[in-house]
Amino acid sequence: MKIDFLTLFPDMFEGVLGSSILQKAQEKNAVEFDVVNFRAFSDNKHKTVDDYPYGGGAGMVLKPQPVFDAVEELTAKSKASPRIILVCPQGERFNQKKAEELAEEEHLMFICGHYEGYDERIREHLVTDEISIGDFVLTGGELPAMMIADSVVRLLPGVLGKEESHLEDSFSTGLLEHPHYTRPADYNGLKVPETLLSGNHAKIKEWRKKESVKRTFLRRPDLLEHYPLTEQERKWISEWEKE
Amino acid sequence: MKIDFLTLFPDMFEGVLGSSILQKAQEKNAVEFDVVNFRAFSDNKHKTVDDYPYGGGAGMVLKPQPVFDAVEELTAKSKASPRIILVCPQGERFNQKKAEELAEEEHLMFICGHYEGYDERIREHLVTDEISIGDFVLTGGELPAMMIADSVVRLLPGVLGKEESHLEDSFSTGLLEHPHYTRPADYNGLKVPETLLSGNHAKIKEWRKKESVKRTFLRRPDLLEHYPLTEQERKWISEWEKE
Repeated sequence: MKIDFLTLFPDMFEGVLGSSILQKAQEKNAVEFDVVNFRAFSDNKHKTVDDYPYGGGAGMVLKPQPVFDAVEELTAKSKASPRIILVCPQGERFNQKKAEELAEEEHLMFICGHYEGYDERIREHLVTDEISIGDFVLTGGELPAMMIADSVVRLLPGVLGKEESHLEDSFSTGLLEHPHYTRPADYNGLKVPETLLSGNHAKIKEWRKKESVKRTFLRRPDLLEHYPLTEQERKWISEWEKE
Repeated sequence: MKIDFLTLFPDMFEGVLGSSILQKAQEKNAVEFDVVNFRAFSDNKHKTVDDYPYGGGAGMVLKPQPVFDAVEELTAKSKASPRIILVCPQGERFNQKKAEELAEEEHLMFICGHYEGYDERIREHLVTDEISIGDFVLTGGELPAMMIADSVVRLLPGVLGKEESHLEDSFSTGLLEHPHYTRPADYNGLKVPETLLSGNHAKIKEWRKKESVKRTFLRRPDLLEHYPLTEQERKWISEWEKE
């Protein structure tokens, strides 16, 4: 997979792309990153990328030209037809299903704006996906773009080793994870549940399932609407509902 | 404000904390960041921070000791009582209201796990807030922690200049933003709406309001449930409903 980040703040990327799984994924040739400062594409002699908004108002708006030209050049070099992604609060909410969808692509291109508006023609005529990571305001699209890339790259074949992929990820089982415990069994008086120390694997399995359903029931009941509950799980829930 | 990040991947932070608004906020003494590798707090001679899970299963779990000790030492140095934040998919969903709440604090401390489980005693007895940024899986809590910090720091007094704070942020007006346009008026045949070029300020204001309501109606009708619509706005919506 190829991933391009178009940004005015390329220094934000190095530490993240050079650490942990994203670094390993590059070493394994599962992904190639390119961080492109689209200011270099400005046809203006001062290399400006923004201008005042038509219709008035404070603040600046990203001009179409540098962004269109940067995307065009990167697309021309591409073997695939890239997904061109704008991260903005108005987009479709990002989730694990979208990560899985993007993981099927050969080429992703993120346009990262920074405390400015985008000229609407970028949104309407250039991008293929507008993605939001939530109802909150950030100074730029760089962090969400890296986050989406992280969630996608870890799904690529061969990227995660056994050690990293072990956890039953919350959004693949449909339930929140059960609690985890490790040594010591008693940490300053805080104890590990006895069942987990019992060595009785059937009981441990049941404890984990029950805790997983319970946590989902208490914190994210919306997830249970799509989860096929067993009869036993229904019984547990009706007991908790009485409490 | 003081913000500590407890992590095993300190290199991920430098580029982000040293760029743009987060850098400026430090220069203005509005915030002080500390990135702490909690491996240094391990009392084990091999400096391990994780161990096998009780009850079996693949993968590793973060031990309580290094995290408790790191938090204890950082808290002892603090003048305030810190908010101790775990970023995890099981937490409360992050939004602008939560950003505003955290912006009132003196000291935030983020515990960033990395493709591992946390020992449940960290969750139950140490953290004050569990925050989720969405229903998707990441390799670590570092990027969400930086993102939350970005959304909080930009709210601190004096951090944003006029240029950066101009936009009517989507989640403060209750509506999505109207489209923005800047020069040229005709970009390769893609034209700016005539109203915005008219110089008629009343019409421009109405156009923007209508586009803002329309976009919210089309993309995020859930936001309109809490928005006090005027009679005119109701009329627009009933026309769009017919279309």
